[in-house]
Amino acid sequence: MAGLVECVPNVSEGRRPEVVRGFAHVVAAVPGVRLLDTTSDPDHNRSVLTFAGEAAAVESAALALVAAAYREIDMRSHRGEHPRLGAVDVVPFVPLSGSTMEECVAIARRVGKAIAAAHDVPVYYYAKAATTPERARLPDIRKPQYEGLQSLMATTHAPDEGPASVHPTHGAIVVGARPPLIAFNIELDTADVKIAKRIAKAIRESAGGLPAVQAMGFELTSPPRAQVSMNLLDHSVTSLAAVWREVESRASAAGVQVLRGELIGLAPLEAMLEVARASLRLDGLARTQIIEGHFIE
Amino acid sequence: MAGLVECVPNVSEGRRPEVVRGFAHVVAAVPGVRLLDTTSDPDHNRSVLTFAGEAAAVESAALALVAAAYREIDMRSHRGEHPRLGAVDVVPFVPLSGSTMEECVAIARRVGKAIAAAHDVPVYYYAKAATTPERARLPDIRKPQYEGLQSLMATTHAPDEGPASVHPTHGAIVVGARPPLIAFNIELDTADVKIAKRIAKAIRESAGGLPAVQAMGFELTSPPRAQVSMNLLDHSVTSLAAVWREVESRASAAGVQVLRGELIGLAPLEAMLEVARASLRLDGLARTQIIEGHFIE
Repeated sequence: MAGLVECVPNVSEGRRPEVVRGFAHVVAAVPGVRLLDTTSDPDHNRSVLTFAGEAAAVESAALALVAAAYREIDMRSHRGEHPRLGAVDVVPFVPLSGSTMEECVAIARRVGKAIAAAHDVPVYYYAKAATTPERARLPDIRKPQYEGLQSLMATTHAPDEGPASVHPTHGAIVVGARPPLIAFNIELDTADVKIAKRIAKAIRESAGGLPAVQAMGFELTSPPRAQVSMNLLDHSVTSLAAVWREVESRASAAGVQVLRGELIGLAPLEAMLEVARASLRLDGLARTQIIEGHFIE
Repeated sequence: MAGLVECVPNVSEGRRPEVVRGFAHVVAAVPGVRLLDTTSDPDHNRSVLTFAGEAAAVESAALALVAAAYREIDMRSHRGEHPRLGAVDVVPFVPLSGSTMEECVAIARRVGKAIAAAHDVPVYYYAKAATTPERARLPDIRKPQYEGLQSLMATTHAPDEGPASVHPTHGAIVVGARPPLIAFNIELDTADVKIAKRIAKAIRESAGGLPAVQAMGFELTSPPRAQVSMNLLDHSVTSLAAVWREVESRASAAGVQVLRGELIGLAPLEAMLEVARASLRLDGLARTQIIEGHFIE
């Protein structure tokens, strides 16, 4: 069994469905790659493709997608609400079953070099593939956006690969490696959104809460209910079981029950094994103890 | 993605390791089949092979194993503590991700017919593949054993397929379909085995406890601890989470903490998803929400 790698590129096109479908076809046509999701946002004028497979196949698909996006997107005329540096804005590689973060960093570096060489585009490495601590966070790299990047090329934004000049139609690109992101919500048995907001504030990392957790409080309608909406940025640091426990105990202290969890999109198998380890105190539970784990390829 | 099927044949040879290795090679040589485990017991003079793959591959491997076992084992000289009817005693087919019990019943029937035709051996269908309620339970079918079967062939033990006479060297065979069996233990924070035995008795189905659960209380040494040892015969009826809850609450009523769970051997992915559904109240959690679930083939 070879290791699986996920790739979640964000491309600066969310208004021409036929173009985005073309990108999806380019990815899905690579043998060994499965396209798991494509989501477009017209306001952001941006699409996110999620695909996975063995490392070499995912690497090929990422490069094929970049080439296709560079043929179709012209940054000189791109408008959208979401910050971006280029036609392909960010390309994260994510380790899944059987692969490691180190492997994904190596993939990111190979893909970054290949993009710089093939397309004459400045490349920035971020997250676990960052070359300096200042480049770990994507928003910091992306702050000047496509329009303001050239003026910083000689100072804060010297590229990690490629030329020190923004490509007129492609812009620049950010490539990196990060853990899988899990979007997980917990619904509370109350319509009082203030309770959800208070819990969210208490548990989010930025306010000194749980590490690698982003959280917001939302109000759901029909029926009216408060929801704690979370991103787990590294489930090996703070797991689904850990946020559930924390939200449940804080809700309970406010006299409110938790109603249900909701997983948005996909989660890696390892995150589910963590839940079983926590609930059944199965410390040593390994992926090889899951029958289907032997057939992941 | 095609569905996965598991097969767990029990063969009447546990004393000649080189012969059992030969059986393992026969199975592993079938393309698309993965041999997950081979366990031999010399006292029982019996081995259990566990393998899985797509239905057609697993069917071929089961037939190849039966042919190999019939070449090597002579029931006229077989001795062992474990009850058995033939050189290949029982062949259960088990639905995993993407396959159904109905498909496994159909496989069992196809394999049963093929064995009867190729080897002139009487075949009995059991568990979900049984043709009458009296044949649902394996011990009932196996009771007369190889030595006593011929005398019942005209009455209670008319075969479902094949001749009404026990094959002199192969004996008879039981083929069927059943849910995956999960062997799961819970260790208690006490050395008092009486508490484990009492809990086991209360939760086992045979004493009116949890359906599809077998349970025993054991005493572990170094350190001395009581353990509730369980087989979950159908985790869709009584799940890992349900037995954990039940044992924990009964232990707690006896003033004892549960220390940890232990999974013996393998469990299907679906059983882990059930744990996540129960712990995080993720009612709708589907296999397709597990990234790796898209790569099971």
